[in-house]
Amino acid sequence: MHKATTIFTQPPSIVTSAAVGGKTEHEGPYGGCFDKINDDPYFTLDTFEQGESQLQKQAVRIALEKAGLTEDDADVLLGGDLLNQCVGTTYGVRDYQLPFLGIYSACSTMSEGLLLASFLAAGGFAGLAVAVTSSHFCTAERQYRMPLNYGGQRPPTAQWTATASGALAVSPSGGAPYVRGGTIGRIVDMGVTDANNMGAAMAPAAYSTIREFFHDTGMKVTYFDKIVTGDLGKVGSRLLCELAEGEFPDLRERHADCGLMIYDSDKQDVHSGGSGCGCAASMLCGYFVPELRAGRLKNILFAATGALLSPTINQQGETIPSVSHLVWLSSEKGETAQ
Amino acid sequence: MHKATTIFTQPPSIVTSAAVGGKTEHEGPYGGCFDKINDDPYFTLDTFEQGESQLQKQAVRIALEKAGLTEDDADVLLGGDLLNQCVGTTYGVRDYQLPFLGIYSACSTMSEGLLLASFLAAGGFAGLAVAVTSSHFCTAERQYRMPLNYGGQRPPTAQWTATASGALAVSPSGGAPYVRGGTIGRIVDMGVTDANNMGAAMAPAAYSTIREFFHDTGMKVTYFDKIVTGDLGKVGSRLLCELAEGEFPDLRERHADCGLMIYDSDKQDVHSGGSGCGCAASMLCGYFVPELRAGRLKNILFAATGALLSPTINQQGETIPSVSHLVWLSSEKGETAQ
Repeated sequence: MHKATTIFTQPPSIVTSAAVGGKTEHEGPYGGCFDKINDDPYFTLDTFEQGESQLQKQAVRIALEKAGLTEDDADVLLGGDLLNQCVGTTYGVRDYQLPFLGIYSACSTMSEGLLLASFLAAGGFAGLAVAVTSSHFCTAERQYRMPLNYGGQRPPTAQWTATASGALAVSPSGGAPYVRGGTIGRIVDMGVTDANNMGAAMAPAAYSTIREFFHDTGMKVTYFDKIVTGDLGKVGSRLLCELAEGEFPDLRERHADCGLMIYDSDKQDVHSGGSGCGCAASMLCGYFVPELRAGRLKNILFAATGALLSPTINQQGETIPSVSHLVWLSSEKGETAQ
Repeated sequence: MHKATTIFTQPPSIVTSAAVGGKTEHEGPYGGCFDKINDDPYFTLDTFEQGESQLQKQAVRIALEKAGLTEDDADVLLGGDLLNQCVGTTYGVRDYQLPFLGIYSACSTMSEGLLLASFLAAGGFAGLAVAVTSSHFCTAERQYRMPLNYGGQRPPTAQWTATASGALAVSPSGGAPYVRGGTIGRIVDMGVTDANNMGAAMAPAAYSTIREFFHDTGMKVTYFDKIVTGDLGKVGSRLLCELAEGEFPDLRERHADCGLMIYDSDKQDVHSGGSGCGCAASMLCGYFVPELRAGRLKNILFAATGALLSPTINQQGETIPSVSHLVWLSSEKGETAQ
């Protein structure tokens, strides 16, 4: 029996969070949820990669400051991103000189970071664990697809990598929202090879993890206000709802996808929706966490999804494995037994 | 006060481990410590990257089999590697369909995986947590430096990326060796920019973490049979001993570096020594863990070191940040208080 799902007997708290974005994110429906907007994709530096690092540096700083904390209060920082060797994170958080655990889960990185931060806090190994991730449209395009200058045509299934970051801090004690539990995702590969259709590759991973959570806990879909995925976009969201239709017919009306939230797809030219580690992370840190803290949302599942391909191995003809880690967040600490 | 260092009140066990290598590793002084040797760098597949995945697939399988276990017994698998987006791990462990947490800490990945597996086991979140990593000479050369066919000249400070993998499993209960504690490393950047001199970039990170462990615990260097680093090689090992000379004069005679162990530098053309995630991981899983289990070693510190650069950002002129995570392994469970 795998213990993919954990329900915390002493649920840790998300004590602070912050979201940082770019110009396109500011123009989206949730533009007001960002703590800081950067109009310059270079962030006044020389390269897009250095720019992406600034996203994470800013998000960590602002998250800590919002709670009256500094990096001296943090015991550990967990982070990663889409860039090769996760350099967005490394160079972004380098100056904080915190004990650092690098993680990689593609666009599911914030779920993984939040889960691990919660394990460390709930296990008594960290008094304050920070998790951060980011993505940047310009770095992702040139690394995964084409340099921007090439002007490549994007198919309708393609998604727009958000220039955004989210950071949060988890502590064994504090107020709402509480991390009540979560499910560590399994790698799911349904044979999709089109790197311009990540939503289709990731939807089965989201479904696998969401189903496992409900099987393991015996809870009902209707218990939750929202079941949030990371960046399935239009194509992947439709697929997820179809996959869930039989066993979880109530999922469709409760489903929200950060990739569909972050931009206005009628007015902004983002094709199938937003994507990237920073998409789910910024919507979580900038919108869902504050809504839960305010009690306007009571219980949500947050299941960001990641496509674990690399351009190299995709060009070698390999299919795209995906993963989705799930976290149960609640405005109430609750009485739960493991 | 940062809690970079944890001492476990209930130390978890490393219940099994396995090392897998290639031809050059087999010809080294510890060639007999590998559970399996693959002479074909393609592992009978089409590409080096697919080959590297086989290393991890084999190591996990063999580690579990040695303890009479299957993947059904494992609650979670933690892994990562040097390849872009950690595809060595993803495609290697995909078929096991285990709850999967991706980690990235360059050549310090096995220390991070072992630490996190120990946190999950000690915290009661996993009954059996598997950690795995790998490296492959041919994939690393073409990703970080030049394709092999180019026949580029390597400077004397360069190291030879080991074609090797190590896997181990941690449980809250079991026999020796025990994970008594560890220190999560901080990112250290002393301004080295030469990607052919990783040893020099990583030595200050190893020193930073080792020093922090001794400061946090008040323990003495002489308590340990060996203080093991991952892949500092000749240049980095000399630097580490020089850095430690003043405060820890006993370190030099206790220091062992997996990069200097894995090959015979007089007979094998490996320049400054071995490197890569698989170097430290295979020496840990193939040599140190069995020695501790047999009681021939009593206490060691295992501090693998990782250089967190990417070729892209290195070519942009950035310096090389490094990190080193440290684990205290012991043949005795001990009586310790947190």
